[in-house]
Amino acid sequence: MEKKEFQKSDLAIGVDIGGTNTVVGFVNNNKCIYEYFFPTQPEKGSKYFVVNLIKTIKKNIKKFEKSYNLVGIGLAAPSVSLQGIIEDSANLKWGKFDIVNEINNFIEVPVKIINDANAAALGEYYYGLGKKIDNFVVITLGTGLGGGIILDGKLINGSNGLAGEIGHTSIGSQGRKCSCGKTDCLETYVSANGLRRTVFYLLSKYNDDSPLRKISYDKMSSELITYYAERGDIIATTAFDFTGEILGKGLANVTACFDPKAIILFGGLTNVGNLLLQPTRYYYESNLLSIYKGKTKILLSKLQNGKAAVLGAASLILKNQL
Amino acid sequence: MEKKEFQKSDLAIGVDIGGTNTVVGFVNNNKCIYEYFFPTQPEKGSKYFVVNLIKTIKKNIKKFEKSYNLVGIGLAAPSVSLQGIIEDSANLKWGKFDIVNEINNFIEVPVKIINDANAAALGEYYYGLGKKIDNFVVITLGTGLGGGIILDGKLINGSNGLAGEIGHTSIGSQGRKCSCGKTDCLETYVSANGLRRTVFYLLSKYNDDSPLRKISYDKMSSELITYYAERGDIIATTAFDFTGEILGKGLANVTACFDPKAIILFGGLTNVGNLLLQPTRYYYESNLLSIYKGKTKILLSKLQNGKAAVLGAASLILKNQL
Repeated sequence: MEKKEFQKSDLAIGVDIGGTNTVVGFVNNNKCIYEYFFPTQPEKGSKYFVVNLIKTIKKNIKKFEKSYNLVGIGLAAPSVSLQGIIEDSANLKWGKFDIVNEINNFIEVPVKIINDANAAALGEYYYGLGKKIDNFVVITLGTGLGGGIILDGKLINGSNGLAGEIGHTSIGSQGRKCSCGKTDCLETYVSANGLRRTVFYLLSKYNDDSPLRKISYDKMSSELITYYAERGDIIATTAFDFTGEILGKGLANVTACFDPKAIILFGGLTNVGNLLLQPTRYYYESNLLSIYKGKTKILLSKLQNGKAAVLGAASLILKNQL
Repeated sequence: MEKKEFQKSDLAIGVDIGGTNTVVGFVNNNKCIYEYFFPTQPEKGSKYFVVNLIKTIKKNIKKFEKSYNLVGIGLAAPSVSLQGIIEDSANLKWGKFDIVNEINNFIEVPVKIINDANAAALGEYYYGLGKKIDNFVVITLGTGLGGGIILDGKLINGSNGLAGEIGHTSIGSQGRKCSCGKTDCLETYVSANGLRRTVFYLLSKYNDDSPLRKISYDKMSSELITYYAERGDIIATTAFDFTGEILGKGLANVTACFDPKAIILFGGLTNVGNLLLQPTRYYYESNLLSIYKGKTKILLSKLQNGKAAVLGAASLILKNQL
């Protein structure tokens, strides 16, 4: 592919389409100069989403149009095939959707798309902790758990663009059903939803008082659990400890597969900091084959507000990726 | 590195150093033209092994010296570091051993070394089923379980040369202790030794008559279990079924990580054919995320006598690998 050279005034839009919110960033000169988000509302359908996205872009781009030149839109989404189609995403439920083509019906700039965890890996590689590391794995901890892998400076796609689905490797033994239909997938334990399930498991197992007993399953969120964990609630802190145990074991498996220099954690679940990171590192080290000990670091993404996926999506345009 | 061009009469020696036997092959013009093996006897020490290896090579090379020109020796061994040192192999117990240097004390030809599972992957890539596949994983089923990974036609090393240690990813829930010190590693179930442990577990669990009840733990071997499985013994066939179940689950995890076009099985444990392959494929498919279904094939290596590692070791010399 021809590598395009960009000008200083060129601006790309990065869009991270999540199951709950969609984050949009305007990226220029290696920085996100403006950012906003809106609720994805996947239940209203894929076409509604695109109309909404275009509307917000056209409104927000106005104040930048004089000084900047829009050169393209990069999308990060779940379940993206090698052909650039969103395929049967469990969180979006849009079936097979050619979103690139749909966006081009409204706006005539180059549009590219990539799996969200791969976007996060590219974001870390070009703009984050990965700038100085050639071999690393990014783990996104959001509604689900995704993985993006950079080996020898190159994004690993696999033969169908589906490598790095670490959230759906089997682990644990509680027999938790996953939304994918399988049992005991890593993300049934380690994700916003997995954390909620763990809280309910712990509420069923122990008698300790907890403000979490007043909250229904539907209203329970990782933000609430984080809030109470930071205030020392025993159920909430134990839930993070349990989550860290399973994550640590899962990351030990990741190291045995890929032997990375670093594993970079990213996403809302990491906002709780050491309450998750400490047990994760402890159980990671104790489940690690001795030959790896002390070689791989577990790091928290330093990209502002977990913007790795937005920046990575923009890099599809600005760094001529794909 | 300068790529050397080879002549038709050039011959490389490939050596696969196993925990039990060492296989040596003379490779010329993409074929193994002569092969022999001898017991490794790791307990006699690393230097004794090298003296023995050189002795057998000098004796066996004689009849080829007139027509062929020895251009180098390639070694496949367990636990090889990026620096080419055998490091703390659980099966060899030689500590840190610079075998390349030691061999060069006796014979002045280029010597190269690689992890045995990576050698098998190179063997399949240059001479076996991998010739037509750019993305595949080789699983070696011997005393232990090893993994070698080729993505986009390139061997995956990881940051310390330790990628692909799939045998030491955690799976299962029986709490089996692994020789590496961890618990429930894939190879505690899926390997010659794992199969033996499963037979003893089944003998403890069921009352069925079986000729295997007459055999002590020390005398039990995968060859014996294969022999009785082929004759319909219920304990032996159930042991292969159980092994296939765990292997199938493990391979589903491998696919979620690497998204390969094929997984190639190789090693003594596969000699039993469908008794292992059928349950493996069944449990693989039923543990696979739907997006992968029907995309990855599980294949048995077709290289004669599982010679993938010997050919791969020779390819270090003949194909200028490393």
